[in-house]
Amino acid sequence: MTQPVAPLAVSIGDPAGIGPELIGDAWLQREAASLSPFFVVGGAQVLQQACAQRSLAVPLIEIAAAAEAATAFARGLPVLTDLDCEYHPGRPSEEGAALALNSLERASAHAKSGEASGLVTAPIAKSELAKVGFNYPGQTEYLAHVCDLAARDAVMMLASPSLRTVPLTVHCALADVPRLLSVDLICHKARIVHASLERDFGIERPRLAICGLNPHAGEDGKFGDEEHRIILPAIAALREEGIDATGPHPADALFTPRARANYHAAICMYHDQALIPLKALEFDEGVNVTLGLPIIRTSPDHGTAFDIAGTGLADPGAMIAAIRMAGECAARRAAHG
Amino acid sequence: MTQPVAPLAVSIGDPAGIGPELIGDAWLQREAASLSPFFVVGGAQVLQQACAQRSLAVPLIEIAAAAEAATAFARGLPVLTDLDCEYHPGRPSEEGAALALNSLERASAHAKSGEASGLVTAPIAKSELAKVGFNYPGQTEYLAHVCDLAARDAVMMLASPSLRTVPLTVHCALADVPRLLSVDLICHKARIVHASLERDFGIERPRLAICGLNPHAGEDGKFGDEEHRIILPAIAALREEGIDATGPHPADALFTPRARANYHAAICMYHDQALIPLKALEFDEGVNVTLGLPIIRTSPDHGTAFDIAGTGLADPGAMIAAIRMAGECAARRAAHG
Repeated sequence: MTQPVAPLAVSIGDPAGIGPELIGDAWLQREAASLSPFFVVGGAQVLQQACAQRSLAVPLIEIAAAAEAATAFARGLPVLTDLDCEYHPGRPSEEGAALALNSLERASAHAKSGEASGLVTAPIAKSELAKVGFNYPGQTEYLAHVCDLAARDAVMMLASPSLRTVPLTVHCALADVPRLLSVDLICHKARIVHASLERDFGIERPRLAICGLNPHAGEDGKFGDEEHRIILPAIAALREEGIDATGPHPADALFTPRARANYHAAICMYHDQALIPLKALEFDEGVNVTLGLPIIRTSPDHGTAFDIAGTGLADPGAMIAAIRMAGECAARRAAHG
Repeated sequence: MTQPVAPLAVSIGDPAGIGPELIGDAWLQREAASLSPFFVVGGAQVLQQACAQRSLAVPLIEIAAAAEAATAFARGLPVLTDLDCEYHPGRPSEEGAALALNSLERASAHAKSGEASGLVTAPIAKSELAKVGFNYPGQTEYLAHVCDLAARDAVMMLASPSLRTVPLTVHCALADVPRLLSVDLICHKARIVHASLERDFGIERPRLAICGLNPHAGEDGKFGDEEHRIILPAIAALREEGIDATGPHPADALFTPRARANYHAAICMYHDQALIPLKALEFDEGVNVTLGLPIIRTSPDHGTAFDIAGTGLADPGAMIAAIRMAGECAARRAAHG
């Protein structure tokens, strides 16, 4: 019934950031944290030096193919060798950006081919990557492209132990949010979230809470008409399709402990509506999951943190949570086909 | 040196809401919660029936003047008698709204005259109060009027044990927020917050964290220009005046436990930016404080909750916190003049 699940591919992220040391730390905690086998793509020297700097006893095992990772994983951190560079924490370089990009490209290809059961991406610095020819707003949009999908088909979900949120609009001015919202956008992304919660998260009848845009969700049209004009019709359409969507909920009331118990994911209208509650509640365990792709992809919900790279201060919680979540989703897909 | 501080006046709020029962509950917990003496303005019958319904043994002591409250408080809940009505939890009525308005008016007058050292307002339903001639967006604006101030001089601050936030714009459409912001608005309200934190909260050198408007605080102008055009100049002006203001901070990063340790109040650009983190973290202890008035005024940061009034489910934490905070602020003003 259950066939062996392929290992996860981990891209190294910017080698001057906190990614490499956290990957090493995650490997050390693999048993306590119930992590599935994973391998890193490239950067063996960076990993070795980053682990040494953090005083982590992580034996590296260079592998030549993804398939070797499963058995190597118990004895050491498997690294698919290729590009590499020196470890200079806190000092991003073009050489480092080239490694980060190469690692992302190859790790994605492994996930796409099925040699890896999923992809975990360590944080990159977009401005650094742009210098070596990376022309996407972020890794999520890049992965949509790799999977031959439109950017809108890749949906970002933030997940922590007690909350999942989906920002419908992301990196745009707040002033632009109202005109970027549409019935189609809400329905399109909510459908993807619904399907992914069923398929990858094993939730039988996902409940989606749709946030309002305005304070008090507009208080019945008193402040702004987006709830009436856009959000309510979208909810009606989703319910028509059999999706358990409720709202529009006043955003400030939706993230209290009591309210959080009533839904599996909150669909939010803008970046900070989704990210403020998640980071306020569980910053060190936030995972960024990309839904809607043929591949599984997760990432710790923090940046490169160049300022604390190499100091030992970075918390490995989100990296560990990202690897665990990717493994769990991969196991579900393998079990259900 | 320390002269006796006058008792606090508590307005009863909508008698069909959770206010009356929570006031009774707060009185019962007055010693454990270190509450200063307070009295309720009107509604003795409502209070008696609400306490009975919640099975609270609260003896009521009818008083004829605020000055009687201090000695009565140890033995029972002092109530300044006048208007009253029947207790019908969950069923707002015009009679109830008239009581709520009368109680608010008289309690405010007591605070203004100094017979009360501060005012704590139980929640009202604005739509109900409008039916009996109350023409203000909320109690905060009403109190500015009572104190002969412009509405912009009354600043709403939300306070919980681990966070204080100030929304610069409140009940307006999100689409209107960008054009409502100005250097003057930020500076005007930040000055009031700064002065109040010193005077009423006893903070010697208050640190104000000013939030960005756009995701990642605009990422150096990439998404929206309000940070450059409005928020940065305001911060520069405040610092020029000797106010320790920092930012603009990305809103999603400002409410993590680590970030919260770095400031005394977060100045937020819109309603939900201020209220989402506070309610997510400490919904049951949120206090709404009005800064900038000659009187002290606090309120529990929840509504009338007609749906659970009389059921015993309402949590008294925020009401208790509001009464305690008003008492603490009043004591500081009395000590420092």
